[in-house]
Amino acid sequence: MIETDILIIGAGPTGLFAVFEAGLLKLKCHIIDALPQPGGQLTELYPKKPIFDIPGFPEVLAGDLVTNLMEQIKQFQPGFTLGERADTIEKLEDGTFIVTTDKGTKHHANSIAIAGGLGSFEPRKPLIQDIEFYEDKGVKYFIKNPEEFRNKRVVIAGGGDSALDWSVFLSDVASEVTLIHRRNEFRGALDSVDKVQELKNEGRIKLVTPAEVIGINGSEHIESLDIEENGAHRKIETDYFIPLFGLSPKLGPIANWGLEIEKNAIKVDNALDYQTNIPGIYAIGDVNIYPGKLKLILCGFHEATLMCQSVYQRMNPGKKYVMKYTTVAGVDGFDGTRKEAEKAVVKAID
Amino acid sequence: MIETDILIIGAGPTGLFAVFEAGLLKLKCHIIDALPQPGGQLTELYPKKPIFDIPGFPEVLAGDLVTNLMEQIKQFQPGFTLGERADTIEKLEDGTFIVTTDKGTKHHANSIAIAGGLGSFEPRKPLIQDIEFYEDKGVKYFIKNPEEFRNKRVVIAGGGDSALDWSVFLSDVASEVTLIHRRNEFRGALDSVDKVQELKNEGRIKLVTPAEVIGINGSEHIESLDIEENGAHRKIETDYFIPLFGLSPKLGPIANWGLEIEKNAIKVDNALDYQTNIPGIYAIGDVNIYPGKLKLILCGFHEATLMCQSVYQRMNPGKKYVMKYTTVAGVDGFDGTRKEAEKAVVKAID
Repeated sequence: MIETDILIIGAGPTGLFAVFEAGLLKLKCHIIDALPQPGGQLTELYPKKPIFDIPGFPEVLAGDLVTNLMEQIKQFQPGFTLGERADTIEKLEDGTFIVTTDKGTKHHANSIAIAGGLGSFEPRKPLIQDIEFYEDKGVKYFIKNPEEFRNKRVVIAGGGDSALDWSVFLSDVASEVTLIHRRNEFRGALDSVDKVQELKNEGRIKLVTPAEVIGINGSEHIESLDIEENGAHRKIETDYFIPLFGLSPKLGPIANWGLEIEKNAIKVDNALDYQTNIPGIYAIGDVNIYPGKLKLILCGFHEATLMCQSVYQRMNPGKKYVMKYTTVAGVDGFDGTRKEAEKAVVKAID
Repeated sequence: MIETDILIIGAGPTGLFAVFEAGLLKLKCHIIDALPQPGGQLTELYPKKPIFDIPGFPEVLAGDLVTNLMEQIKQFQPGFTLGERADTIEKLEDGTFIVTTDKGTKHHANSIAIAGGLGSFEPRKPLIQDIEFYEDKGVKYFIKNPEEFRNKRVVIAGGGDSALDWSVFLSDVASEVTLIHRRNEFRGALDSVDKVQELKNEGRIKLVTPAEVIGINGSEHIESLDIEENGAHRKIETDYFIPLFGLSPKLGPIANWGLEIEKNAIKVDNALDYQTNIPGIYAIGDVNIYPGKLKLILCGFHEATLMCQSVYQRMNPGKKYVMKYTTVAGVDGFDGTRKEAEKAVVKAID
């Protein structure tokens, strides 16, 4: 059982920044995310795209913002349960919660902050018979650890940035990379398309277009794929099949937690602390809804901050909290580090 | 008469960021601030101090945050009325407002956003007879344009960072810099104290301690100061007297605008748009109060954003606004510039 003060569901920018604000209040955080790495949409969907409306950044790449946030929170040592989806919740008699993931990992927390963005990202799966059967046997919708593919044969399917970029990346790792797409044209950053062209010319990526994977073969593990190429059928031997057809966000099991839902989002009390209808469960960032709600990262930062204050009151009833500015009081990390402004000196000049 | 859509009172980080969010909605902003430069407290009180709780910045110097915000908003060409204090407000029949400063500058706006921080910074004045008489005749509480002191004699009084730093700065500009302090010890950044010591040793700053200015002489302009030094009296000839004894924030004339005030702050509707009891007047950032209010810069950013949306509705009643993400839609500046993410290409690989 993982124990924490605030269990944050969703490792996007709002969830990550909550760790910082909680840390200032000496509250520990643990984060669950269905994706294999922190950053949410920013990392998974558009890491190389610039964002122009983060206050103080005339322009920041989405991936860099996540890197900065990870750096900003590291002294508060958040725990992570990645690649797992928060599935069920149980409220204990003392008002605390147990959240269990789809893989059975249990988390016990005083309060829950749902920072689930547009929902948990579910891969769009190709319509191939028995594909579910092979999901533990060589079919991968996410690449969690590229080393898994070291010196293996992989077939990637898809025509967008993910398919292009992972083909390029794995061409240095796998023994053989085949990229299959139902069209000749790819849609992505010019750099990525050109790089795949170059690697194809060098024989380091095999391109099969226009083509589709129509069947999977193997017993214990994938052994080969059935391909339809230009109306003809053939087999490609491979160790892994990685269909990268995009992600579709789903509120998922959270929708069954008894929370008030409106327009696929969770209703919260924006006049106070972004708490839901269930005391101790908060919703912050794009996943919540209230009058005037804007789905902006900067709004999530504010909501996360007020949520942390409310949890502090929940855990320390009646205790008066006096806010201290970081510029004045510094930041004391849970890892023993301390950040602070240079102190003024009092010194005679003679 | 200066015409604008949103008149922002206060050029601190919240007021500055409001210009960006307004710009995305094609609304023009003009900012009034009593200080001679933008940035509010950050520029005036602690430009070299690190802030640790701006989301996405593990650490940022206050002055750098202001520089970044100015860069972020420049394409929306905000107007500035600096070194003047918003004094009176008049609501016209059509619901718009005219705000006049203490120097008589008039501004006409659809909506007002008070982003006044802790209030307008009033200098702490030394208790010297007739000092007000000399305020247009060589007494300066702020340094707006250092060139004014080129080849002039200046006397600076004070024992903190401002007195130290301006003494250092003006030693390159003025013909003579005298620093007077009632103690031998100065309180400031070690660097600043050491630099003053060095310049004093080189004879480029005259130090008079422990001493106090007790009188000002001159008819059309300051000619000399009366000094009490170690119980003895003497005169120092000078062109300027710059007492830098700190600033004290005051809500000031805004307190008489008919707004609901609580604990020296302006009450707003945090459940919707941070509007005050007077329709069309909003209060954002440290100057406002509501249940759970935290005086944090990041909260001001959120409040500014929701305020802009509300002004948009005021100016375009009934018009449905569809929010577009900057990452997707780019940013169109009022100066004709356009910032946008690199577009995806659709390209065949052969």
